[in-house]
Amino acid sequence: MTLPTRLELSMPDWFDDLEPTLPEVVADLEERMRVVIDLSRRNFEAGTGGPFSAGVFERESGRVVALGVNRVVPSNCSCAHAEFMAISLAQRALGRWDLGGDDGPAHQFVVNWRPCTMCFGSVLWSGVVDLVIAGDGPELEELTGFDEGPIHPDWRGQLAARGIALTEGVLRDEAVAVFRAFGESDALVYNGRGGGRR
Amino acid sequence: MTLPTRLELSMPDWFDDLEPTLPEVVADLEERMRVVIDLSRRNFEAGTGGPFSAGVFERESGRVVALGVNRVVPSNCSCAHAEFMAISLAQRALGRWDLGGDDGPAHQFVVNWRPCTMCFGSVLWSGVVDLVIAGDGPELEELTGFDEGPIHPDWRGQLAARGIALTEGVLRDEAVAVFRAFGESDALVYNGRGGGRR
Repeated sequence: MTLPTRLELSMPDWFDDLEPTLPEVVADLEERMRVVIDLSRRNFEAGTGGPFSAGVFERESGRVVALGVNRVVPSNCSCAHAEFMAISLAQRALGRWDLGGDDGPAHQFVVNWRPCTMCFGSVLWSGVVDLVIAGDGPELEELTGFDEGPIHPDWRGQLAARGIALTEGVLRDEAVAVFRAFGESDALVYNGRGGGRR
Repeated sequence: MTLPTRLELSMPDWFDDLEPTLPEVVADLEERMRVVIDLSRRNFEAGTGGPFSAGVFERESGRVVALGVNRVVPSNCSCAHAEFMAISLAQRALGRWDLGGDDGPAHQFVVNWRPCTMCFGSVLWSGVVDLVIAGDGPELEELTGFDEGPIHPDWRGQLAARGIALTEGVLRDEAVAVFRAFGESDALVYNGRGGGRR
């Protein structure tokens, strides 16, 4: 037998063209979210994954460290959510498995909705000290059909217990507009058991 | 700027040597767990990651589809838990993002303890129909020092709601023995915020 031993995951081709046009530093928090939400729309419109995106920024300077989009279907990888891509790309770029610690800048994680149950865990382990979300609540599942999974009832307290600050409601309407557009499209919705639907 | 766009993750070098000696098919459930637990011990003893491992098997035939071990520290990737590696490698090998569905064999996921909060979510999205764990409870955290995160209080019900069967307590003592050996070693424990400890 020859078991698989190597994985490769990548951002979509269109990101290579977009990347030189993106700002290197984004000082304003709403502008950071705007960059992220723009990617969420581009991703599903291009057919390169679900309408989800995330960014790792240096909290103080606003330097963009890494951006990620959902890559599940094109990559044949159900773990390749936007949060996974952004965190892992940032850690690779910095050569460290911990985006926190006392020997480097504090990192902020900006996501276009509350992470799913898997990605909520990935935030805890990433080392970021700051989570910024456009919102939480049923709109995502209702508008898109995605299952977000069973997040812990005290998820806010669990972040706080690990020293991770939370900012909610940044450009909420803009994030919801992308979910609505996705829901009105004919894009695939994958929810684990049961396989791709629509 | 040049943002990172590609990720590569791989199994440890020692796995390449071990792989030809592994069985292609493991019919017995305890033997499947034994293969997994053996990898968890090899991994931390070789200094190639934490004492965690997971395997994707065809549920009926016992064919080994993919095996994974924790690769967080060597890969600079806090998401590279054993479950992520095994699921993603299996999906890559099969060329599908869904290990379930009606057009292929049912897959069983065998893990050397209850998955952490992140990896619990990854099980839900993987498409496996069967989760087998050596155990759950405080032994892992107490013996190793790892934070397993806030799993949902009704995690068993959440699996059942998605059609994922659960088998617990398979070779529990053997799994705990590895955690104890890890805890008595001088291996690194990484817990996200706060960085590597010990």
